Amino acid sequence: MSAAPEPERLRRQLEFLVEIDRLKQVERQTNIVGDHRRENTAEHSWHLALFALVLAEWSDAHVDVSRVVELCLVHDLVEIDAGDTFAYDDAAYADKRDREGAAARRIFGLLPEDQQKWLWARWEEYEEAATPESRFAHAVDRLQPVLLNSLSGEQGPWRRHGIRHDQAVARNQVISEGSAVLWEVARARLDEATRRGHLSS
Amino acid sequence: MSAAPEPERLRRQLEFLVEIDRLKQVERQTNIVGDHRRENTAEHSWHLALFALVLAEWSDAHVDVSRVVELCLVHDLVEIDAGDTFAYDDAAYADKRDREGAAARRIFGLLPEDQQKWLWARWEEYEEAATPESRFAHAVDRLQPVLLNSLSGEQGPWRRHGIRHDQAVARNQVISEGSAVLWEVARARLDEATRRGHLSS
Repeated sequence: MSAAPEPERLRRQLEFLVEIDRLKQVERQTNIVGDHRRENTAEHSWHLALFALVLAEWSDAHVDVSRVVELCLVHDLVEIDAGDTFAYDDAAYADKRDREGAAARRIFGLLPEDQQKWLWARWEEYEEAATPESRFAHAVDRLQPVLLNSLSGEQGPWRRHGIRHDQAVARNQVISEGSAVLWEVARARLDEATRRGHLSS
Repeated sequence: MSAAPEPERLRRQLEFLVEIDRLKQVERQTNIVGDHRRENTAEHSWHLALFALVLAEWSDAHVDVSRVVELCLVHDLVEIDAGDTFAYDDAAYADKRDREGAAARRIFGLLPEDQQKWLWARWEEYEEAATPESRFAHAVDRLQPVLLNSLSGEQGPWRRHGIRHDQAVARNQVISEGSAVLWEVARARLDEATRRGHLSS
């Protein structure tokens, strides 16, 4: 422990923690409950972590919940530079990986080297979706907006962007790779939204 | 596992997860970086969890980091009903515990019983500050606003409410119970803010 108040290692950690504050300014398509405004990615990440803590028992495979929570908390940090890519924007999805890779290099690069590696490992684990933990993190990352959008109805992004039921099913089917039960929940909400005319049929 | 899409247990979990969305509407005194607006408690909780993940090595006692993260994520849920109590509002602090206890009963009570118990245990652990994990969670819960307030200067809550250096030291000293190093960081920021006239001397 150095006598200086902020040794180099700590200085870098604090710089990173201040920099990621900007995730609070990344606006998503989802409305918060009550439709006052759009959700931002920082509060979205918090919400996902709570989804993971509360719903872990519905994962098809056994998961290390604290690992899922970490993935939920850090997987969207790249949006600080790359922005939120709307789930139904196929053109933006084409270069999403490149934009986010550059963002990861800059933002994770603020940290001391061992912590950069830790963050890269988590981000890649999420992106590759090859572990039970990352598959369940993907499931809650899709379930959360389905749930909120099913509540915001007329004002929500489905109606705003004219999304069709089959598009929504295709985009959210990834939930089924983490949890059959949660995919049933999501499907029921998508069907209901279609009956109400918030998704087009 | 039931064949019904939303068995009673799952229905309660989803109701809880929708209810806590309201934490995104609880406004704090801290400004986000860039001073565009005040921080809300949902994004604050996310930020704290990242502070815990990145700074855990500076805890004086060994901590289970994932436990600290859980405490950071859930300890402010009661603010949905009780609101954020400004750290320097002594009158509001007088009945804080009562208001928050009622909030915990209602909000945690939405969950299935075993999960209510889990959440009560976490909340009480945080409030009692008797474990290394809860002491470190308190430390980052104070360090985060000190860091952000030291950046927002003229526009920040210290200047807005005419807070004095000795008040800020007294209020944030709890950081020293979790981490001597992080308390040094906070003290240096408070001293600097006083030199700049953002805290009065």
